[in-house]
Amino acid sequence: MATSTEFNLAEATAVLSRTPATLDGLLRGLPDVWVRCKEGRSADGKDTWSAFDIVGHLIVGERTDWMPRVRVLLEKGEARAFDPFDRFAQMDESRGKSLEQLLNDFARLRRESLAALQALNLQPEDLTRRGRHPALGVVTLSELLATWVVHDLTHVHQLSRVMAHQYRDAVGPWSAYLGVLQCAGHSAP
Amino acid sequence: MATSTEFNLAEATAVLSRTPATLDGLLRGLPDVWVRCKEGRSADGKDTWSAFDIVGHLIVGERTDWMPRVRVLLEKGEARAFDPFDRFAQMDESRGKSLEQLLNDFARLRRESLAALQALNLQPEDLTRRGRHPALGVVTLSELLATWVVHDLTHVHQLSRVMAHQYRDAVGPWSAYLGVLQCAGHSAP
Repeated sequence: MATSTEFNLAEATAVLSRTPATLDGLLRGLPDVWVRCKEGRSADGKDTWSAFDIVGHLIVGERTDWMPRVRVLLEKGEARAFDPFDRFAQMDESRGKSLEQLLNDFARLRRESLAALQALNLQPEDLTRRGRHPALGVVTLSELLATWVVHDLTHVHQLSRVMAHQYRDAVGPWSAYLGVLQCAGHSAP
Repeated sequence: MATSTEFNLAEATAVLSRTPATLDGLLRGLPDVWVRCKEGRSADGKDTWSAFDIVGHLIVGERTDWMPRVRVLLEKGEARAFDPFDRFAQMDESRGKSLEQLLNDFARLRRESLAALQALNLQPEDLTRRGRHPALGVVTLSELLATWVVHDLTHVHQLSRVMAHQYRDAVGPWSAYLGVLQCAGHSAP
């Protein structure tokens, strides 16, 4: 079977609609050691995120990035660049909340995003419409929507790595066999 | 907060008990493009797994690896090495099954494993008991149990990567920003 796939709106939304349940399965109700600990890869502990931070980041994306960019692309085309995405906004916005609140907020926002996407009733020819990314330049609607999917998967990938690293010493000699412990942190944050 | 954590049985089983729900959230009901496509990283397409293959591998681990090794360690100590783990058995065992069957099988086997683990009523002093890995040599019970947890997370990490790679061309210029697409496949298979 092919190893790279053309973008398909139904297949993309199939992943996007499942991410809240994936995060619930992985995180809801877990002891704090898995939720609040950071990966701690950098020497000074900077720039590493906890599972809690990652869910907060996905919430910010839902509010400010994905559907807002879809709308700018459809309404303004290449004439107006997307607003830059603040990748650290969750550090303030999540403060004082519980993980359960964040998971609930994310699930609700994702449902609203997908309802808004469906309401656009996009046709195949819309997928080639163009917009402008502030750093990457011209991009298409299908590239934006595919990126939304892979962004979800990047953070599932990061979550599994952040959690696994809590046990990087506890596994003893098995660490050599456990791929996630070899991951170079390329998706952090 | 600390960046590496001592093994704790309750915290470990908290992750192990959630993995079936994580896999359900991520995979159940997804279109085949996400489930059956391999990562296809190697030049000849060899040695890369699909999501379907990965769930099959987790089933084999449940049947032949984790609790069987716990029992060998507790009963034989260092006197008998664990049986080697066949990392390709699922290629035959999963044939003809649906993903839904595999997810159901895995959830049932994991419940049985955790019930058996609980029935052992392990005490803190048991965690330092020693067994023998056929290649790694002497290992402790806590290392074996921690490895079970990180093995789950390694395959969640791999699943997110295998899926993301289906859209590695579809995301266009965003690929530079998406960490999961930079992952060197260190956890495959």
